[in-house]
Amino acid sequence: MKKSHCYGIIGLGRFGMPLAKKLAQEGKEIIGIDQDEERVKELREYSEYAYVCKKMTKEVLEEVGISNCDIVIVCIGSKIETSILTTLNLMNLGVPQVIAKATTEEQGEVLEKLGAQVVYPERDMALKIAEKILRKNLVDYIAIGKDVEIIEIHATSGMIGKSIVEMRVREKYGLNIVAIHNLKDTKTDIDPHYQMTSEDTMVVIGKRKNVSDFIDDYSA
Amino acid sequence: MKKSHCYGIIGLGRFGMPLAKKLAQEGKEIIGIDQDEERVKELREYSEYAYVCKKMTKEVLEEVGISNCDIVIVCIGSKIETSILTTLNLMNLGVPQVIAKATTEEQGEVLEKLGAQVVYPERDMALKIAEKILRKNLVDYIAIGKDVEIIEIHATSGMIGKSIVEMRVREKYGLNIVAIHNLKDTKTDIDPHYQMTSEDTMVVIGKRKNVSDFIDDYSA
Amino acid sequence: MKKSHCYGIIGLGRFGMPLAKKLAQEGKEIIGIDQDEERVKELREYSEYAYVCKKMTKEVLEEVGISNCDIVIVCIGSKIETSILTTLNLMNLGVPQVIAKATTEEQGEVLEKLGAQVVYPERDMALKIAEKILRKNLVDYIAIGKDVEIIEIHATSGMIGKSIVEMRVREKYGLNIVAIHNLKDTKTDIDPHYQMTSEDTMVVIGKRKNVSDFIDDYSA
Amino acid sequence: MKKSHCYGIIGLGRFGMPLAKKLAQEGKEIIGIDQDEERVKELREYSEYAYVCKKMTKEVLEEVGISNCDIVIVCIGSKIETSILTTLNLMNLGVPQVIAKATTEEQGEVLEKLGAQVVYPERDMALKIAEKILRKNLVDYIAIGKDVEIIEIHATSGMIGKSIVEMRVREKYGLNIVAIHNLKDTKTDIDPHYQMTSEDTMVVIGKRKNVSDFIDDYSA
Amino acid sequence: MKKSHCYGIIGLGRFGMPLAKKLAQEGKEIIGIDQDEERVKELREYSEYAYVCKKMTKEVLEEVGISNCDIVIVCIGSKIETSILTTLNLMNLGVPQVIAKATTEEQGEVLEKLGAQVVYPERDMALKIAEKILRKNLVDYIAIGKDVEIIEIHATSGMIGKSIVEMRVREKYGLNIVAIHNLKDTKTDIDPHYQMTSEDTMVVIGKRKNVSDFIDDYSA
Amino acid sequence: MKKSHCYGIIGLGRFGMPLAKKLAQEGKEIIGIDQDEERVKELREYSEYAYVCKKMTKEVLEEVGISNCDIVIVCIGSKIETSILTTLNLMNLGVPQVIAKATTEEQGEVLEKLGAQVVYPERDMALKIAEKILRKNLVDYIAIGKDVEIIEIHATSGMIGKSIVEMRVREKYGLNIVAIHNLKDTKTDIDPHYQMTSEDTMVVIGKRKNVSDFIDDYSA
Amino acid sequence: MKKSHCYGIIGLGRFGMPLAKKLAQEGKEIIGIDQDEERVKELREYSEYAYVCKKMTKEVLEEVGISNCDIVIVCIGSKIETSILTTLNLMNLGVPQVIAKATTEEQGEVLEKLGAQVVYPERDMALKIAEKILRKNLVDYIAIGKDVEIIEIHATSGMIGKSIVEMRVREKYGLNIVAIHNLKDTKTDIDPHYQMTSEDTMVVIGKRKNVSDFIDDYSA
Amino acid sequence: MKKSHCYGIIGLGRFGMPLAKKLAQEGKEIIGIDQDEERVKELREYSEYAYVCKKMTKEVLEEVGISNCDIVIVCIGSKIETSILTTLNLMNLGVPQVIAKATTEEQGEVLEKLGAQVVYPERDMALKIAEKILRKNLVDYIAIGKDVEIIEIHATSGMIGKSIVEMRVREKYGLNIVAIHNLKDTKTDIDPHYQMTSEDTMVVIGKRKNVSDFIDDYSA
Repeated sequence: MKKSHCYGIIGLGRFGMPLAKKLAQEGKEIIGIDQDEERVKELREYSEYAYVCKKMTKEVLEEVGISNCDIVIVCIGSKIETSILTTLNLMNLGVPQVIAKATTEEQGEVLEKLGAQVVYPERDMALKIAEKILRKNLVDYIAIGKDVEIIEIHATSGMIGKSIVEMRVREKYGLNIVAIHNLKDTKTDIDPHYQMTSEDTMVVIGKRKNVSDFIDDYSA
Repeated sequence: MKKSHCYGIIGLGRFGMPLAKKLAQEGKEIIGIDQDEERVKELREYSEYAYVCKKMTKEVLEEVGISNCDIVIVCIGSKIETSILTTLNLMNLGVPQVIAKATTEEQGEVLEKLGAQVVYPERDMALKIAEKILRKNLVDYIAIGKDVEIIEIHATSGMIGKSIVEMRVREKYGLNIVAIHNLKDTKTDIDPHYQMTSEDTMVVIGKRKNVSDFIDDYSA
Repeated sequence: MKKSHCYGIIGLGRFGMPLAKKLAQEGKEIIGIDQDEERVKELREYSEYAYVCKKMTKEVLEEVGISNCDIVIVCIGSKIETSILTTLNLMNLGVPQVIAKATTEEQGEVLEKLGAQVVYPERDMALKIAEKILRKNLVDYIAIGKDVEIIEIHATSGMIGKSIVEMRVREKYGLNIVAIHNLKDTKTDIDPHYQMTSEDTMVVIGKRKNVSDFIDDYSA
Repeated sequence: MKKSHCYGIIGLGRFGMPLAKKLAQEGKEIIGIDQDEERVKELREYSEYAYVCKKMTKEVLEEVGISNCDIVIVCIGSKIETSILTTLNLMNLGVPQVIAKATTEEQGEVLEKLGAQVVYPERDMALKIAEKILRKNLVDYIAIGKDVEIIEIHATSGMIGKSIVEMRVREKYGLNIVAIHNLKDTKTDIDPHYQMTSEDTMVVIGKRKNVSDFIDDYSA
Repeated sequence: MKKSHCYGIIGLGRFGMPLAKKLAQEGKEIIGIDQDEERVKELREYSEYAYVCKKMTKEVLEEVGISNCDIVIVCIGSKIETSILTTLNLMNLGVPQVIAKATTEEQGEVLEKLGAQVVYPERDMALKIAEKILRKNLVDYIAIGKDVEIIEIHATSGMIGKSIVEMRVREKYGLNIVAIHNLKDTKTDIDPHYQMTSEDTMVVIGKRKNVSDFIDDYSA
Repeated sequence: MKKSHCYGIIGLGRFGMPLAKKLAQEGKEIIGIDQDEERVKELREYSEYAYVCKKMTKEVLEEVGISNCDIVIVCIGSKIETSILTTLNLMNLGVPQVIAKATTEEQGEVLEKLGAQVVYPERDMALKIAEKILRKNLVDYIAIGKDVEIIEIHATSGMIGKSIVEMRVREKYGLNIVAIHNLKDTKTDIDPHYQMTSEDTMVVIGKRKNVSDFIDDYSA
Repeated sequence: MKKSHCYGIIGLGRFGMPLAKKLAQEGKEIIGIDQDEERVKELREYSEYAYVCKKMTKEVLEEVGISNCDIVIVCIGSKIETSILTTLNLMNLGVPQVIAKATTEEQGEVLEKLGAQVVYPERDMALKIAEKILRKNLVDYIAIGKDVEIIEIHATSGMIGKSIVEMRVREKYGLNIVAIHNLKDTKTDIDPHYQMTSEDTMVVIGKRKNVSDFIDDYSA
Repeated sequence: MKKSHCYGIIGLGRFGMPLAKKLAQEGKEIIGIDQDEERVKELREYSEYAYVCKKMTKEVLEEVGISNCDIVIVCIGSKIETSILTTLNLMNLGVPQVIAKATTEEQGEVLEKLGAQVVYPERDMALKIAEKILRKNLVDYIAIGKDVEIIEIHATSGMIGKSIVEMRVREKYGLNIVAIHNLKDTKTDIDPHYQMTSEDTMVVIGKRKNVSDFIDDYSA
């Protein structure tokens, strides 16, 4: 079974399952395998190429067509041995891109030595959530380079009723407002006289230090 | 032991541990508890308030001071029963904000009924990674409202050597360039005549549909 | 399968099984489910709607028709997680009345938060038996309001050969004799001159304190 | 350690624990033993005579003083072997009254052959609850002899606003009203012209068949 | 299936299996049951009535015909619970004679209370072997009454070459020689002048004390 | 620790324990070892030389003094590997006589090849009991040579009230009466005119065939 | 199934599997058995006589034809009991040569007593590798008699560019050069003027002591 | 603790233990670690640097001084994950030479990717033994280059009484006799007229094919 543009997902647990479903929902052809029959059955509603595989040998991986995928994501978390050997087999089968989930740095290092790109979903998500806990009102953020960041933030108490100009966002803090949105509307070309309401969420870019100062100044 | 501003983390696994460490590194006072001695020992290097607790009864939670925290994050993944009963106890002890990690929707629903904010880190991260896999060159993104998004993207082949003006980013696609950065420099006020290089990463905001068109047009 | 008047019993253990059998013997339509094949087979002799279900998901509960019952009793004792998630699913499926057995107060509190009526059979029965042990000759009792009770009691040594009048049950203790019965006969309209025999059991109503005095006075 | 009036409880689980606590709360001297340290610790707050015993040999039972109790209740549920051998040892040690909890009829029969009184708490409670489910508004009941019963019942829709006389409780159904109570008051000498309210609970005695007819006639 | 003269063996382990085979070899009709398929298969070569039974309920015991046996031997050693409940069921089914193997005295006592004859094969055999170890040259023995015994003994060093008369077996020790045998011959009418050889084994009856003296006097 | 006349027992289970106790009760010096602490403690009341040994290595066997015993009995039943390796070690340590309990013939054959005397207590006892079941009234018996036996038998119905002479024990069956005993008395010199009573037990020697005929003739 | 020249391999693990494959590859008829289905399937590609056997009884060994093999190799490593009983059965079935793998000396001794040749592959290989680690440049070696050895060694630094004559291999050390080889060529008749290169490996025979001196003298 | 010339052995099982002992016996300084206390105790008699380590983290490996060894041999067989992560840690700690035992080819490949030399002791030993089984009289052998080999062989039947010259070892087969030895003597300079005896073992070098022909010609 030759698949032209195809994604393989190995391991349909708490990480692999939503990943596989998302890719399938986006109209991609996917192959999903897992040791557990229940899970495979669950994925079958999204893709006909869902298989129970007890062992991830080369033979098995070839048989189900995983070896023909463009990208294979190895979502085998805590079973380090299986994660490593499966990745090895995928590399040897010539899969162009292998992304592997790691749960410890040691595991990540081995997977990288075998040629895989490594992701640490639990750790990364923990950091995102720490950031949100630390910075009240924060919705999301992107760190850019060393010290610039884009943050999405609910209007803090001090912002409400004030316009961008009044708050001297640019003059005093050197920040750019990228977008202001609420449930009804999203503006990306910002009127500097627009007055923030308690419904609004603001997206702003600038130096991390300045962003913090800006928020601190306008929080109670 | 009364803690004025304090964070409690219950469960120091692959999600709770980096979360606890991050909060501690940011200078926050934290209390971390887990059933496993090894993990508690690991956290001890970050906080003196790390305890082995075999059961998460009210008595235990009070004794270690978790009941005095402002925010408690319940990072007990797969042990659904413990996750639920611990959350119940925290609510009954009057903890103002309880954030609980869920691994299934049913678990999430029970936790919400008990009054906790619920997060699904594995699922959320899976969706982030699916997005990256689906959209080549994507580094990070924030979805804003229904159909606007900010995306961070490595220069695609078709962008290299072209200026913002040439690509008609604003005229044709209605997008704003929010930032351009590479290893040396991060610009947030963009010169429209700046020519993209293969080293550059661009951050752009606009309608999801338009962003996709823009990228597609400038990919090989 | 729509059931007009139907009772669902989930968990056919030491509590659920006699409950299910009793309801079936009273001519009610019941649906019984359990993980264990042996138990389901045992119930089959009482109802054709007895099923082995390994998981209590919404889908399964709907499939076997439990979602159409008027009352469902969740008799899953010590498996707290299953008890909670099953109850959640029943509520979400719109079952009008869910009665759930709890073994700890924490479990009971969660079940109540989900909308179930909670019963504690072991604890309640323990209290009944404690009462019997504490009060010799006691057969059964009903507590009414704060301090009135109806008790059923075998004739104590001091009562034998005495009439109601002689014992001044009403005058001295303010009690009403509700019934006197022995193996042959049950009287509810009591002749005040009837003399108690060692075969008789008496049912009496009155203030708890007075009942105790009466019994103490007529025990050896 | 000679105990003059003393109760022994063997097995401090979901049945034995509340039983032991209740007896202790009533001021009785108790001895409680269990294999589990946690449980024994829990009982210690009620009685200093709580011991961890791994085996229930004669020697152990004598050592902790159980052999000197007047009544010993063997609350060892599902471990049939231990339940039987412990009961045997208690009989051989000359304990005057041994009450043993059984979970199956076979177990009960062996225990009786050894000389114990047998109780089946889960089964009995299941029957009580079945009764309540079957008969709407039922609060509690006592079966007396073959076909008489006392029942405690919330006022049904048809009773509200009607007096005892109007309902012809005695004339038509041959029943006696034993008590009427609500949150504020409990009456045991009933005024036949008292009109039932939706707050009232009524206690009535009579033939089972007649009781049912009466309730059915006054339910919607 | 009604069996006129039939033996039932429950439990085909190290004790029950040779017992069942022996009875079958003697031409008796037997029914053998065990939980283990291998063992049942092994017995099938001796009797067609060998069954795998997972539980020893009344129903099962009736179904395989054990309830019609004249004698049932319960050879369930260490599983005390099963041994007891099976014995109970056999008694209730009206089996005329139930012999049950016990491994502890407590177990034996319960089995007797249920009406079974109890045997302790390991203990009894241990005593036999202790006897042989203690008394050199001993082959077998029967204890008769309080202090008489029959012993079978290899000729000791001091006996060789001596006649019965010379040894004054009767005169001095009050013993009777019951038999003398060697590989070739067995004599039960003993010539008092027969001289013992090193090949001979002697069977002698008398007081235990005298037997010991006799042997001691004729051992080196 | 050099022991002059000493017995070693390895394995203090259902067979080894009574063996060890019996030898100790007879005043012999014994060394008993087992893996289980409880059992060793039990034997300690009979001998101070009782030890917990987790492994039966040469070193351990020497250390506890077993290597100096005259006779060692290996009572390790079902753990075939331990039974074999322990026996090997004992032979290598130069123990003069090793008796080993076997539970299968294969195990027995290996033990013999290593130089041990092998006993099969469960099998032997099973045969004894089979014999008793097969021959009503039988108490005990010794098989002598090929076809002679001594049997101890309760008086059968046909024997009661008859004298030895009348029954023609010797003339017709060629048997010798060795002893007659009842609760009060044991006779080894038999008066041929003695009349058997229902209390008597008879010990008789003769050809197996003849013994059977005699008993059959005098049974109902 | 009579096999004229046939090898049996029992146990297809890390040792038995390559052994079985090697023998099959050399064209020998083999019979391989193991408890594990996966392994048997793996061997099936080399021999049609590969069987799953759960027990190694005489009957099984005969059935699969192992009893007819000329040589049987028992490759059951850590399961000592199975290894011993299987070997016993093979001897009893009359297999002419039984080779058994042992992992401990005790196991080896029992196997020898049963008549098997014993090999210790892990231990032997460990010694080979220790030898290589201890002696740099060593490739392989054979020990001959007490103190002579043949060693195969990569050219050490001091040998490069020197001829055999120059190094006085024979004169000074009393050694014979048996072969010199490199990737291209293998010479067994050595030109004494041949100059060693860094590519060469030398095979030399002589006294162990002298070989060591020679290598030490020509290592840096 | 800095060790100048030191060998580390991780895993003291059937392979690692004899390896460690051998190196210690040769006077080398070794460090041995294992998870099992018994094994570590066993090695302590050979080296004081033997440690129980439950986890093979970098910290642990540094602490016990393994990180300072010149060569570390990872003898962790079947626990593939531990074998891989330990090897990774050793490489990261800068150990100059890491030799790792592999049990499967996949494991070997990963270990090599991490930079270790890989050995397969069970497989290699299996091939050696296969060779011996295949070639009667073979004692040992070294394969040199593609098709030359040195073999050590017991005198075959056809060789006995014949001289080297007679057998035309060199002329006909192109072989060199490297050594002839028996229990008394080892000769490396061979007299061509020496007549082989049945006691002799011969070491011969030559082409594999020719060696086989020579042996075949002189075997019966």
